Amino acid sequence: MANSNEEVENKQIVLRDYVSGFPKETDMVPSKTTLKLKVPEGSKAVVLKNLYLSCDPYMRSRMNKSDGSSYIHSFTPGSPLVGYGVSKVVDSGHPDFKNGDYVWGMTGWEDYSLIDENPDSLIKIKYTDVPLSYYTGILGMPGVTAYFGFYEICSPKKGEYVFISAASGAVGQLVGQFAKLLGCYVVGSAGSKEKVDLLKNKFGFDEAFNYKEEPDLNAALKRHVSYLYFPEGIDIYFENVGGKMLDAVLLNMRNHGRIATCGMISQYNLEKPEGVHNLFLVVTKRIRMQGFVAFDYYHMYPKFLEFTRQHILENKIVYVEDVAEGLESAPAALVGLFAGRNVGKQVVVVARE
Amino acid sequence: MANSNEEVENKQIVLRDYVSGFPKETDMVPSKTTLKLKVPEGSKAVVLKNLYLSCDPYMRSRMNKSDGSSYIHSFTPGSPLVGYGVSKVVDSGHPDFKNGDYVWGMTGWEDYSLIDENPDSLIKIKYTDVPLSYYTGILGMPGVTAYFGFYEICSPKKGEYVFISAASGAVGQLVGQFAKLLGCYVVGSAGSKEKVDLLKNKFGFDEAFNYKEEPDLNAALKRHVSYLYFPEGIDIYFENVGGKMLDAVLLNMRNHGRIATCGMISQYNLEKPEGVHNLFLVVTKRIRMQGFVAFDYYHMYPKFLEFTRQHILENKIVYVEDVAEGLESAPAALVGLFAGRNVGKQVVVVARE
Repeated sequence: MANSNEEVENKQIVLRDYVSGFPKETDMVPSKTTLKLKVPEGSKAVVLKNLYLSCDPYMRSRMNKSDGSSYIHSFTPGSPLVGYGVSKVVDSGHPDFKNGDYVWGMTGWEDYSLIDENPDSLIKIKYTDVPLSYYTGILGMPGVTAYFGFYEICSPKKGEYVFISAASGAVGQLVGQFAKLLGCYVVGSAGSKEKVDLLKNKFGFDEAFNYKEEPDLNAALKRHVSYLYFPEGIDIYFENVGGKMLDAVLLNMRNHGRIATCGMISQYNLEKPEGVHNLFLVVTKRIRMQGFVAFDYYHMYPKFLEFTRQHILENKIVYVEDVAEGLESAPAALVGLFAGRNVGKQVVVVARE
Repeated sequence: MANSNEEVENKQIVLRDYVSGFPKETDMVPSKTTLKLKVPEGSKAVVLKNLYLSCDPYMRSRMNKSDGSSYIHSFTPGSPLVGYGVSKVVDSGHPDFKNGDYVWGMTGWEDYSLIDENPDSLIKIKYTDVPLSYYTGILGMPGVTAYFGFYEICSPKKGEYVFISAASGAVGQLVGQFAKLLGCYVVGSAGSKEKVDLLKNKFGFDEAFNYKEEPDLNAALKRHVSYLYFPEGIDIYFENVGGKMLDAVLLNMRNHGRIATCGMISQYNLEKPEGVHNLFLVVTKRIRMQGFVAFDYYHMYPKFLEFTRQHILENKIVYVEDVAEGLESAPAALVGLFAGRNVGKQVVVVARE
């Protein structure tokens, strides 16, 4: 590591300009600057060496020019992207963090980041007996999303019928495994044969299908879900996709079903979101459709962490990551999410230590 | 009354054929038959003299040819329509009902009905110190819908901001008054100046607007609801309308808001329902959208009845009915619901006693 009084070269991935439609790799450009690896005198800031960066679908909305209505701020064109990551503290003016600590939380898409706004939001990593990259996924925001989304929002009961879209992704693969742990029947959809195989053979889903091979999603659900495995329909839908999939699922929901509305990745790159036409079924089937976001649950992170880590250590939960090597691979990795190129949780390794 | 061993003339309103699009008066035809005012020997049936018939939006779906997916059966072309009504028992083989009892529940659109299927579902009217017609509205299905929809589904708290569409209708006028009783701020939308005046001057809404005069519902909500009265947005939306109104409301909901999805009258006559485009806001605003139907709550009817009757007797709740005279006026009354011609709960008087 460089002497902390010197400035070091700091590679970055910078947002070129606001994006409309599908993001392209060229919307993000490599850049270089320098950074002093020391916090300003008297500040509570920390300087981080970034190890793993997380590519998450919600980041797409931060590439839009804000109209003031979004739940998170837009990125600043000309500045590095910001996202969840796992980092090592290399200097700290904050009483909770010291040099050498590992943390996860919001950091920059760059080698080193000075976190001077809201360093309190960083979470110190207590356990390093699991891969550090897991704190971008199974033990980070996607894990919190899956855990509280399933256990709190879905009100699941043993024996119920669960359908998950984008099921091999960072969140879906966990929801399916939580549901199996509870004794539910689980069907998932994903976008390739490889992913469908993962769902069935690695994550223990009861059934899975490739939605890209299904011209009629309602028929696919009837075939794969309602008639074969879930004769009375779907009790719980964990919604990551939106649009046509939601319309098809509504047709196949059971009375008093629950829809945990986690995300709608099929809609993020559209100028105008698709219309959902079957909402009247929410009345007739007495469906509860509930949106949620992970950060409402961070105060319960320790409970989630103990449960999930224990299950990882006992090999009762597995996690598949799609690891891109090097900061320079980050734009392609992020763009790949929206084409479904990632298999499992998309991580970018900036440095291994 | 005729001697019960004789057959009496029985006027009926018969469904001509299944309906597509907006129903017309001519989809229902007056007819005549005869009925013996005596239940078959040994049966548990009852014979009813119908006094008041209820026109309700849900009846539209019973005019469709069933595709097996609806929550209620279709009407039978060539047979009288069936709906909620208030009736007097003129003969009974059922131990719970005797001649002269008043009941409310499902009956035929005719002078007299033989109820031989499921007479158990009729509810005996305990209190006649309120208008009997109220058992088609404030003390019947719409009342149960408003009461449990508001108190159970909306999870309301004093001081919250409530918006109600179709607010002067059979259900909406009650939801608004329940919300005011609890200390909420209440805004409603309706389709005429007369109805808006009712909302403000008779039902005690804090504000109301005529949606037919608003080319941009989002702007109307911002003006009438969000900025003026509900600066932080809508906590509770009681949804009777669907479609464009739902899309506009989603834009104006507050974080952690609740949408009680009661009905979607704007959609019932469309070949394909309108698409709702703003559902991603369910995620970002952590909205709970929950469908419900009154008949899931009938086992709690006595609790509702005591509360609501007491408030009627104390003049703390008022109820506006739109009364059509005579069975022959029923088709126009029902059709009028979908043009918003009714002012308040639409009732048809078949006979006053």
